[in-house]
Amino acid sequence: MEFILKPIGFVRVSLPDDVIRESIRGVSGIIEVLPEYEEALDGIDGFSHLIVIAYLHKIVPSDRRLKVRPKRLIRLGLSEEEVPMVGVFCTDSPYRPNPIAVSIVRFTRREGRVLYVDNLDLFDGTPVLDIKPYTFSRRVEGIEVPSWYLSLLDKVRRIRPDIAEI
Amino acid sequence: MEFILKPIGFVRVSLPDDVIRESIRGVSGIIEVLPEYEEALDGIDGFSHLIVIAYLHKIVPSDRRLKVRPKRLIRLGLSEEEVPMVGVFCTDSPYRPNPIAVSIVRFTRREGRVLYVDNLDLFDGTPVLDIKPYTFSRRVEGIEVPSWYLSLLDKVRRIRPDIAEI
Repeated sequence: MEFILKPIGFVRVSLPDDVIRESIRGVSGIIEVLPEYEEALDGIDGFSHLIVIAYLHKIVPSDRRLKVRPKRLIRLGLSEEEVPMVGVFCTDSPYRPNPIAVSIVRFTRREGRVLYVDNLDLFDGTPVLDIKPYTFSRRVEGIEVPSWYLSLLDKVRRIRPDIAEI
Repeated sequence: MEFILKPIGFVRVSLPDDVIRESIRGVSGIIEVLPEYEEALDGIDGFSHLIVIAYLHKIVPSDRRLKVRPKRLIRLGLSEEEVPMVGVFCTDSPYRPNPIAVSIVRFTRREGRVLYVDNLDLFDGTPVLDIKPYTFSRRVEGIEVPSWYLSLLDKVRRIRPDIAEI
């Protein structure tokens, strides 16, 4: 069983991948929706945040893993030993069976079929599969996370007090 | 340009599609992850909510739209004229160019490769493409929505005071 998806647009960022990867709260960029889908944006002005579903096209099949040591935490300053190996479905690691990203971006302005956004954590040229509005029901209250995750969050905050979330 | 995705599991719910469609806060069900991906769940216990990315397999290409009148609001009691036609990227309508759902479910229990969840709004048999943890950074504070959306929310709340969100 297979599903075939096509891009509805592309991410455009004039920054190298490394800068985007190292950014804490993402970068500014645009989402350029293909002309044939422009009408699907009607009514989007006024949403402060959008959910961007993207296909991580730079992940090759041999990159895919079932368990990962989240590299982002190592980049933030934790040692390799401090970061546990966990199942990829418990992380946002890009090295997943289907390399799909669900990114929440700040939406600042639309110009035709171009959306200006902040907090973008996607590389230049990333194909976008879908865009959804971030509405009230997306904000879940009273969430809980496992102790291994809380302990990592504590460690990160100790070495990087500017970071509230991982 | 096309991307090929494969299911990593399936939704199992012993309720007819109509009951799931009419439910306000979703239903209880399970996500059965395929045996070859079970390891990718290691560490998932303790997350109270998961993000389930699913392929809406019952949507046929001729169902896809650029603009929609969100049917869910009509089912909630609004008249056809009260619900505006808006771009599909401003809604969660399933009739989108790539029929992908991003559902937030309450995760209650894991048994091997079976995840027990509540608030499920996916039909029995829906292929699951990915699972991600709902972590603190997914909860955006101070969001804004367009006036057309707020006005619909007001109307729904007037006729259905039990509904806080649409």
